[in-house]
Amino acid sequence: MANFNAQLPTIFGALSDPTRLAVVERLVTGPASVSELAKPFDMAGPSFLKHLKVLEDAGLARSEKKGRVRTVTLSPDGLHWVEEWALRHRRLWEHRLDNLGNFLVKGNN
Amino acid sequence: MANFNAQLPTIFGALSDPTRLAVVERLVTGPASVSELAKPFDMAGPSFLKHLKVLEDAGLARSEKKGRVRTVTLSPDGLHWVEEWALRHRRLWEHRLDNLGNFLVKGNN
Repeated sequence: MANFNAQLPTIFGALSDPTRLAVVERLVTGPASVSELAKPFDMAGPSFLKHLKVLEDAGLARSEKKGRVRTVTLSPDGLHWVEEWALRHRRLWEHRLDNLGNFLVKGNN
Repeated sequence: MANFNAQLPTIFGALSDPTRLAVVERLVTGPASVSELAKPFDMAGPSFLKHLKVLEDAGLARSEKKGRVRTVTLSPDGLHWVEEWALRHRRLWEHRLDNLGNFLVKGNN
């Protein structure tokens, strides 16, 4: 998890496309072949493979070819990083609001 | 929160740039003027304003001009959505691993 901050913009970029987001949402339920993953999308094969490459480059998925079938698996660390980042910054925001609230209450007494 | 899924790729896209990510990380500590936000970045004014516009369009920030000063404030809903999405999908992934673990344990008994 050393490159946490350096990797985040790339992870967010990988999730910024509806097709790639839908692929991640499918992969959390288990590994799938490329052809199974591509089925819901009206898209040429090479275009879909480019999307998979973006997910792999961002560390959100990995794939392995056995015979003629390439199977794609989620790499869950990326989801952890996204969750941690959002949680941490939401807490900072709420902490600030709490402090502001305390300050206003004290100011009125 | 009606447009949760439709808005997510746009929110992730807004967070996919290191400058915009740093601006959000600054805004969780409180509102700031545009010039204060721009200070840490070696960037022309118009380029920085474009980044702010992307954050506003994604619903992650809002800004208000009083006199000559434009003040930018975080809109925290976007962070909530990101956190909820990542949390929900991490849980789905872990639930699947739990089921797989139970299946393997039962299979060995």
